[in-house]
Amino acid sequence: MARDTDTFTLIALLTDFGLSDEYVGVMKGVIYSACPSAKIIDICHAVAPQDISQAALMLQASYPYFADGTIHVVVVDPGVGTDRHILLVQAENQIFIGPDNGVLTPLLQSHNLLNCYRLIQPATPSNTFHGRDIMAPVAASIANGTSPAMLGEEIAAKDCVTLFLPRALHHDNQIRGEVVAIDHFGNLITSINAKQIETFGEEFQIIVKTAVISSISTTYGEAPIHQPIALINSRGYLEIAVNQGNAAKNLSAAIGCEVVVQKYVV
Amino acid sequence: MARDTDTFTLIALLTDFGLSDEYVGVMKGVIYSACPSAKIIDICHAVAPQDISQAALMLQASYPYFADGTIHVVVVDPGVGTDRHILLVQAENQIFIGPDNGVLTPLLQSHNLLNCYRLIQPATPSNTFHGRDIMAPVAASIANGTSPAMLGEEIAAKDCVTLFLPRALHHDNQIRGEVVAIDHFGNLITSINAKQIETFGEEFQIIVKTAVISSISTTYGEAPIHQPIALINSRGYLEIAVNQGNAAKNLSAAIGCEVVVQKYVV
Amino acid sequence: MARDTDTFTLIALLTDFGLSDEYVGVMKGVIYSACPSAKIIDICHAVAPQDISQAALMLQASYPYFADGTIHVVVVDPGVGTDRHILLVQAENQIFIGPDNGVLTPLLQSHNLLNCYRLIQPATPSNTFHGRDIMAPVAASIANGTSPAMLGEEIAAKDCVTLFLPRALHHDNQIRGEVVAIDHFGNLITSINAKQIETFGEEFQIIVKTAVISSISTTYGEAPIHQPIALINSRGYLEIAVNQGNAAKNLSAAIGCEVVVQKYVV
Repeated sequence: MARDTDTFTLIALLTDFGLSDEYVGVMKGVIYSACPSAKIIDICHAVAPQDISQAALMLQASYPYFADGTIHVVVVDPGVGTDRHILLVQAENQIFIGPDNGVLTPLLQSHNLLNCYRLIQPATPSNTFHGRDIMAPVAASIANGTSPAMLGEEIAAKDCVTLFLPRALHHDNQIRGEVVAIDHFGNLITSINAKQIETFGEEFQIIVKTAVISSISTTYGEAPIHQPIALINSRGYLEIAVNQGNAAKNLSAAIGCEVVVQKYVV
Repeated sequence: MARDTDTFTLIALLTDFGLSDEYVGVMKGVIYSACPSAKIIDICHAVAPQDISQAALMLQASYPYFADGTIHVVVVDPGVGTDRHILLVQAENQIFIGPDNGVLTPLLQSHNLLNCYRLIQPATPSNTFHGRDIMAPVAASIANGTSPAMLGEEIAAKDCVTLFLPRALHHDNQIRGEVVAIDHFGNLITSINAKQIETFGEEFQIIVKTAVISSISTTYGEAPIHQPIALINSRGYLEIAVNQGNAAKNLSAAIGCEVVVQKYVV
Repeated sequence: MARDTDTFTLIALLTDFGLSDEYVGVMKGVIYSACPSAKIIDICHAVAPQDISQAALMLQASYPYFADGTIHVVVVDPGVGTDRHILLVQAENQIFIGPDNGVLTPLLQSHNLLNCYRLIQPATPSNTFHGRDIMAPVAASIANGTSPAMLGEEIAAKDCVTLFLPRALHHDNQIRGEVVAIDHFGNLITSINAKQIETFGEEFQIIVKTAVISSISTTYGEAPIHQPIALINSRGYLEIAVNQGNAAKNLSAAIGCEVVVQKYVV
């Protein structure tokens, strides 16, 4: 195997495997065994089991922070072993490997989509762990220099499965969105983005469960302790937090909760 | 220190340390400080505290996916600080470091066992963290080129502690095994392997708690949603799953539960 | 970018981000994208949200095991986005980056403190994730060879925020300390260090909740099963454990519980 010691291909993993089993470690063993020069980064392994939509949103929030040439392996794969395909997507100057179940939606809908291939799947020792048996070896192979075009047949992005990712709807004086994720701190991440709110000027209320918030803060620490605040988060979306508290617990909010931004009408 | 930039020794860690303390990070600090060129892979740190048997099974399921020359450090060590020995086992073209408490059983019983050494233990600053104070430095030293034979005295594998790992017993028309692990998805991993079931042909029932399953599926998605299925898993063992559900919860099954494969007698 | 392939700068991360979101992975993406030759080590990401004191203690327990030149990034940052400063501390032959909120106290009070700088903060795309937007790029920049002195203005350690970390008080025949951490095994880590106990000779009692222990064991396995023992742990502090049990659960002990060492008075 020819290898340039100055090149370290990054391989980023995003799965619903959790960390209580050997599954993630075994995938890394397979990758490093085939491509010792790779650098493997864990994006997250705590996607809720089989939650394709959560994984797609997490991928969307993270890939912009990875270098050109990074290979992403996304394994949230309820259809493993069925006739679902595996995709190789070249987009945003990176490469994305994952099942054709919608988990790669943000890339399939990207303006910077270059190519999309259906992997020609090899025979495998198991029908239950394609992360280990197919996707890890393919990632290593690409890291070693194989072109994605050699591994699959080109297809149109429109022929791949895509999800309808949660968005926010804008009606006159109201934006209606929802909670799409709750992070480790209990912050509520919504489907309403910064640009939608900017159009409303300064006069509006944000309503989530029992909380009514009438301004956008710029930092977590601005509100009195234990009071809910709204701010634009690091993903560029509206987020509801509680200063030194847990918004999800305090407001009894769950994923899917409605979030409304209501403009004052004079 | 002489180092060949083309050589990246893999060091794989398997412990019961969890990830809520600094223990795993400190072991990595010790290893990388002594051997900057190593690549450390986490197999798993969620082995139940002091559960030697679970660690041995997890090691058995994972080491085959690692490259020749990989150094495994297995720290599940209730006897730390007592007169228990630490073993260096060369087997399956890899090297395994761990306490002599049975955790290395799969290698001690391997047909591809080459050598087994009892480490000559250095004096240590603490009696409670030999992962950090002894095993990590030894792994780094071997990664730097020291031969295991230089670090210990050879002993016979039969003189090391081995566990009686859960197996399945085959009586005429019945295989009786047990649940040996429950994974992150709630799948029940059993002690019954694929070869044992193959001898039964097509006509049998699998009984676990209240579930009676009469065929082996090839994928998780084959059964109706929320129905239990049986399949051969990625370790090569019988596994009970629930399509888009959690078998352990749905069947109230725990580790140690009996699993019976009953042949139809015509 | 000039880079010496023989140099692998270690970058160690300690945060309260947890592992259920993409936050840690994104920080690694930013670091590796800017400095592909770095080696990133996770010390721990399970610091309780915004618990600066816990992070400072964990940093104190772990940095001595890292090589000279290691760059530590500590992100426990309730004041993110406010006018709190970010510090670059050169101490103990390593470099520490973190908010000026006391989390770097052990280094600011170190006898081996060399220099301390307030980072000149760049404009950032978000006010809520300086780990990603400021501290990760700064770590990568230093790993790439930039001197900390180029990135900030020197300040005196005494002008930085420091915490009063839990200590133990010694009165005549008594040492009064507290539980400062409970580890994954349920062991109670106290604020009483080995040297304080050595002055008491052999005749004393250790009292924690309902447990009265009259000697220091050298290993976890010395007591009868399920009995509490006291020992000097791998951090050099008094620790209360239960042989093959969970001391925190068995004794209903929590962080902050009083721990008393009482000398026998004849």
